[in-house]
Amino acid sequence: MKKILNHPENYADEALHGMCLAFPHLYAQSGEAGRVITRAIPADNKPGVVSGGGSGHLPTFAGYVGEGLLDACAVGNVFAGPAVMDCMDAIRAADSGKGVLLLFGNYGGDKMNFAMAAEMLEAEGIETRTVLACDDVGSASRDERHKRRGVAGLIYAYKVAGARAEQPDATLDAVAAVAQRALDNTWTLGVALSPCTVPEAGKPTFTLADDEMEMGMGIHGEPGIRRGPLLPADTLADEMLTTLLNDSGITRGDRVAVMLNSLGATPLEELFILWRQVQAGLKRHGIVARAPQIGRYATSMEMTGASLTLMKLDEELASLLLTPVSHPYWSNAQ
Amino acid sequence: MKKILNHPENYADEALHGMCLAFPHLYAQSGEAGRVITRAIPADNKPGVVSGGGSGHLPTFAGYVGEGLLDACAVGNVFAGPAVMDCMDAIRAADSGKGVLLLFGNYGGDKMNFAMAAEMLEAEGIETRTVLACDDVGSASRDERHKRRGVAGLIYAYKVAGARAEQPDATLDAVAAVAQRALDNTWTLGVALSPCTVPEAGKPTFTLADDEMEMGMGIHGEPGIRRGPLLPADTLADEMLTTLLNDSGITRGDRVAVMLNSLGATPLEELFILWRQVQAGLKRHGIVARAPQIGRYATSMEMTGASLTLMKLDEELASLLLTPVSHPYWSNAQ
Repeated sequence: MKKILNHPENYADEALHGMCLAFPHLYAQSGEAGRVITRAIPADNKPGVVSGGGSGHLPTFAGYVGEGLLDACAVGNVFAGPAVMDCMDAIRAADSGKGVLLLFGNYGGDKMNFAMAAEMLEAEGIETRTVLACDDVGSASRDERHKRRGVAGLIYAYKVAGARAEQPDATLDAVAAVAQRALDNTWTLGVALSPCTVPEAGKPTFTLADDEMEMGMGIHGEPGIRRGPLLPADTLADEMLTTLLNDSGITRGDRVAVMLNSLGATPLEELFILWRQVQAGLKRHGIVARAPQIGRYATSMEMTGASLTLMKLDEELASLLLTPVSHPYWSNAQ
Repeated sequence: MKKILNHPENYADEALHGMCLAFPHLYAQSGEAGRVITRAIPADNKPGVVSGGGSGHLPTFAGYVGEGLLDACAVGNVFAGPAVMDCMDAIRAADSGKGVLLLFGNYGGDKMNFAMAAEMLEAEGIETRTVLACDDVGSASRDERHKRRGVAGLIYAYKVAGARAEQPDATLDAVAAVAQRALDNTWTLGVALSPCTVPEAGKPTFTLADDEMEMGMGIHGEPGIRRGPLLPADTLADEMLTTLLNDSGITRGDRVAVMLNSLGATPLEELFILWRQVQAGLKRHGIVARAPQIGRYATSMEMTGASLTLMKLDEELASLLLTPVSHPYWSNAQ
C-alpha cells in the first residue's frame, strides 16, 4: 500500500498539525511536542472529558475534540500510546474545577500512562475518574470482558459522556457513570480483509491471502477469533450480528444504536451492502434500531474491513446520543 | 484489493438499496429498477436540481440528494452512465413546475442520455437547462476546457445550485447561471497511487509500479498528465497547487474554497499532511482560503490518491456555499 507522506517519522505530527490548521475554530494544539489537542475555545465550569491513544485511527481519537464531545486528547505515535506528560497536559487543559473523566480504550500502555498522569495530578488537586472501552467481542471471551480491547464503541461513549458533561447539573460522577453505562451496553466486532502499513515500519502489519479474511481482528492487527475464506457480504453481516447478539444478550424489543464503521479503505458502497443485511437481521430479531452511523469513525489508515457496533439504549443514552452537535465527524443528519 | 460484496453484478443496486434503507428520512428509491434516488420529502414550488452518473463514487452522486442540495439523481452501474429512462424519471421527480437544472460531469454517455431525456420531457412540458462540470485540469488543455472531465468540483456546484434553488425568488435561469458560474470558477487536479477494482471486471482498472504515481488521472482511471516516481507529500502538494493556480489564473487577493478529497483508501491523516503544505502555499501566494472541505466527497471505491479543488469565490458563491444544510455528506462544521 502506497502512502502520501514526507518522512515516515513525521507522519503523526504532520497529520495532527494539518488537522489543527484545517479547523482552527475547532482544535488547538498544545503540549511540549504538540501532541495535545484541545478545544479552540476551552469550556468553563463543567466536568472535563479527555481521551487519548495512538495515531493512525482518524477521526479517532483527537478528531472528536469539540463542544459536546471531548475537551482534550493526548496523541501518541502511529499505533502507540500517548506519553505521560501529554496525558497530564490534556487533563490539565480539560479541568475547569469540576474534575476530568479519562475515557479511552483498554490497552496496556494507555492505561499505565493515564494512571500515572492521574496520580501525579491528584497532587495538583485535579480529580479524575477512568472509564475504559472494552467493546471488542473478538478480543477475549465474554467472561473476561475486562480483557477486551476498546474499538469503535468508544465513539458512542464520547458522544454520550460529552453531551452529559455539557448539562448544567453535570458532576464528574454523573458523567463517569453514564460513560460506564454506555460502554457496559456496547459491543463491537470487526472483520479485516487487508492490512495497513505503519509508516515507520514500512511494511504491512499482517498478511492475509487473497481469498482470506480474519474475523475479530483488532484495529492494530491484533489476532481475532478466526481466519477463513472471505465470506459473501450477507453471510458476513449475519455472522457479525449473530455473534454480537449472542455475546450481548440484546434481544427482542430492545432498542439499539448501530455503527457500521469502515476500517479505512472499504468504501461506503460496501458498508451499505452490509447494512441491508444487518438491518434485515435486526428486524428479524425484533430489535429496534435507530438511525445508524455508517462511515469512518475508528480506522486503521488504509486497512480494508469493517466493524459493527451495537449499543443497547435506555432513555438517557438515546437522548444523549441525539443531542445535536456541530462537528465534522459526528453528523446529526444520520 | 478485496471487496465486501455478494454478487458483483448486484454491487450498485445493493449499495443504493442499503443507502436508502439507512437514511429513509433523507432518500427514497424509485425508477423501474430502483436507480433513481429522490428526496424522501419532495420539495415543492422550486426549480429542481438533478444529477446523475455511475456507481462507485459515493457519496457522489446520489449521496448528495437532500434539502439544499439535489432533488433527484439517476444512477448507473459502477463507472457507467445512468439509463435514459432513469434520467427521465429523475427529472420528472424533481420538477415542481419551475423546471429542472441538469448538473453532471462532462462524460459522453451521461451527456447523451441526459440530452435524450431532456428532449423527450420537453414534450411533457418540463423545461430543463444543462450545466456540465469540466473541472479536471488533468484531462485536457486549458484551451479545450469543454473537453475536460468533471470530478470533485461538481460537489461545489451541487451546494451552490442547491442553495440557490431553495431561495424564494429562484428561477431555473438563475439557478443554472449560478451553477455555471461556480463551475467556470472551479478547477481540480487529482493524483492516483493505486487502482480500484470494478466488481464485475474483477481486476484493477490500471497498474502503477510500487514507486509510481500518476498526476491528473481521472476517477475512472482515465489517463492523466504524467506518470512518475511517487513524490513526497509536500512536493506533491506544491505541484498540484501550482498547476491549479497556473491554469486558473487565481492570484493574490482572490478568495477561494478548497476541497482536499480522498479518492477512497487514502486516510484522513494523509489528507491533513497534504493540507499543511497546500495552506502554506495559498498563504505564500496571498490567496485567501475559507475553511476547507477535507475528506471523501468524490471517490473511486478503494482507489489510493487524492484530488485538490479550488473554487474562486465571489460574494454570492461564498454565501451559497455557507448556507447551512443538515446532511451526512456536507458538514457545516467545516
